[in-house]
This record gives sequence, structure tokens and C-alpha cells, in this order.
Amino acid sequence: MDAVWPVIHVEYPEWVKQHVDWSRAYVKDEDKMGLAIEMSRLNVVNQTGGPFGAAIFEAGTGALLSVGMNSVVRLNNCTLHGEMVAFMTAQARERSFTLRRKDGPATELFTSCDPCAMCLGATLWSGVTRMVCAADREDAFRLNFEEGPVFPQSLDYLRARGIAVETGYMRPQANAVLELYRKSKGVIYNG
Amino acid sequence: MDAVWPVIHVEYPEWVKQHVDWSRAYVKDEDKMGLAIEMSRLNVVNQTGGPFGAAIFEAGTGALLSVGMNSVVRLNNCTLHGEMVAFMTAQARERSFTLRRKDGPATELFTSCDPCAMCLGATLWSGVTRMVCAADREDAFRLNFEEGPVFPQSLDYLRARGIAVETGYMRPQANAVLELYRKSKGVIYNG
Repeated sequence: MDAVWPVIHVEYPEWVKQHVDWSRAYVKDEDKMGLAIEMSRLNVVNQTGGPFGAAIFEAGTGALLSVGMNSVVRLNNCTLHGEMVAFMTAQARERSFTLRRKDGPATELFTSCDPCAMCLGATLWSGVTRMVCAADREDAFRLNFEEGPVFPQSLDYLRARGIAVETGYMRPQANAVLELYRKSKGVIYNG
Repeated sequence: MDAVWPVIHVEYPEWVKQHVDWSRAYVKDEDKMGLAIEMSRLNVVNQTGGPFGAAIFEAGTGALLSVGMNSVVRLNNCTLHGEMVAFMTAQARERSFTLRRKDGPATELFTSCDPCAMCLGATLWSGVTRMVCAADREDAFRLNFEEGPVFPQSLDYLRARGIAVETGYMRPQANAVLELYRKSKGVIYNG
């Protein structure tokens, strides 16, 4: 029989090379979320995907473990939301299926928008112990982005399992990128 | 600055080549779920991952689009549940981020166990219009597998968006694989 052998290959878009400084320490929350939102903005500007970005850091040191940006259309893969790309690439660097280490520092996800149902579930499996979100579910809905079956008790479920969840942090800055995307949408889809 | 450039690479385990017949038509639900459960069983027997399998078919023709098997530990990637591998590889074959085609046949996900929160969300984004599950959430819990924030209204949310959801189909056969995994677990984790 002929074998079917699909191969999935995920990499950052090229612009990450020019725009992400891996050597600096992102100590303040403002700097961490600033990078997540910058990923969303550069994804729009470079026409490489939807207006959603993320980044994962070591708590304390502020070391950058990974970035993420919506890559669904670029890579023909519905699972590649910004948070998912950040989880996968952080775990590839760590060579581990969890970012929760026995002795090392805790890890934190910063995302430019409340995660959808898929990304919320993945946050639980990822091993991060803190999730900070900027734009909210309704902000995404206004652009016709669906978020799926996420309910108030979904966030409580994460909190009950030791994940600190903060929402609405730097929401105006994240919303500015959603607005940029809305204005440029025609260009992007015809690009 | 030094660029960090993780590359994610996902392929089926080798045994798929020997054990999956891509040329046959899986017309009956029994045959479709049989393949999903067989993926879970072979994943346990070959010690390539957790006891969860999935498969995606064209409705009507019964053509096989993809298979999936839990690959979290094998590939150091917390997102690679059986359903996720099935979505990604089906979309890679279709070169499309959705399995919902304008004119072609509908597509269906068969999974050996109720999907976790992440996979349930991804089901919504995948483009399948039918999801059939075998073992249930409590069956998974008995093996200490978490399912995350999935509530009764989560399934209703999918149904309201045009996805037919059926649960408990061929549950005893799927549970036999969970039991096989429980018995062989020591071997697998020390492998």
C-alpha cells in the first residue's frame, strides 16, 4: 500500500530575526506584554497572519523563552494561534513537553488577546504558571474572530490548578493593533 | 543579536507505515472508529505515546484523510494530542487551514476519547462537521489524564455552530486500550 506521510513544519516568519532581541531581560510586565503586542503588530504589518501575538518568559530573570504569532493562514494549520506557536517553540528549546521545571524558575505566558478555547486548554498543558492577557474576547469578536467555548468558569478551572490569570492588561495598546488589522484587512486577504 | 530559531517538526511514528491502509474506504462508523481506536492501541503497544488515537474521514466516500495519535512525549510538545495530530496532518494534505470545503464532501473526526479543552476548541477551527467520541472524560480521569475546562455547554457550543457531536460510541473497545495502557504504564515510562 502507498503510505501517506504528511510532514508538519513550523518556523517563525523571517521578520522575527530582525525584530526580536533574545539577549535582553524583560523584567517588567510592561516590557513582557509590550513584546507580545509587538508580535501581533509585526504580524499584521508584514502580512504574515492575524493580529495576535504572544511571548513566554522566565519569571524573575525575565529571560525570553519564545515568541508566538498567529500562523494559521501562512502555514495552512488551524492550530497555529499565537499562543500555540509560543508553547511549541518554547518546548522545542527546552526539549521538554512541559515548561514547569522542578528546580528552575517558573514560566509566564503573555498574550495580546484572551486565549480561545484551544489555547486556554493548551495553557493548562504547557506548564506555565501565569497567564496575562491584553485585549478581551469581545474585542476579538468585533473583528469576527471566534473564541470558542470559553466560560467564566474556564478561567477559574486554570486558577484552581495553580495558574495565575490576569486579563485586560495593556488592553488599549492591543486594541490599537486589532484596529490596524481591521483597516488593512482587505490588503492582507488579497495579499 | 543571536537569533533563536526553534523548528517544529511533526511526523507520524514509523508504525503507521505498516498498519494504516490509506487505499480502503471506511464507510461504516464502526470501521472509522475502529481505526481511531487501533491508533490508540498501536501507540501503546509501540510505546510511542499515550493511549489516544483519532482519524479524519470524508463523509460518504469514507476516504481516509489522516490519522492521529498522542505524540506529546515522543516529540516534546504538549499540544500534540491525537486529535491535534489528525487536524494538522489532514490540513497539510489538503494544503488548507480548514477541512470545510465549498463543494467537496464534509469531513468527520473520530476520536478514541472525549477531547480535552484544547482539542475541543481545535475541532471548532478544524472545519470538520461531525465529531464522534468513544471513551469518556471519566474514563480518562481514571488514568489520571486531565481533560481541562470542558463543560456540558462546551459541546452545545459546537453543536450550535453546525458540528454534530456523538459520544460513547464503541466505548468498551476504547476502554480496553486504556486498561492495556494502565497495565503497561510502568514499562512505557521506563522505556
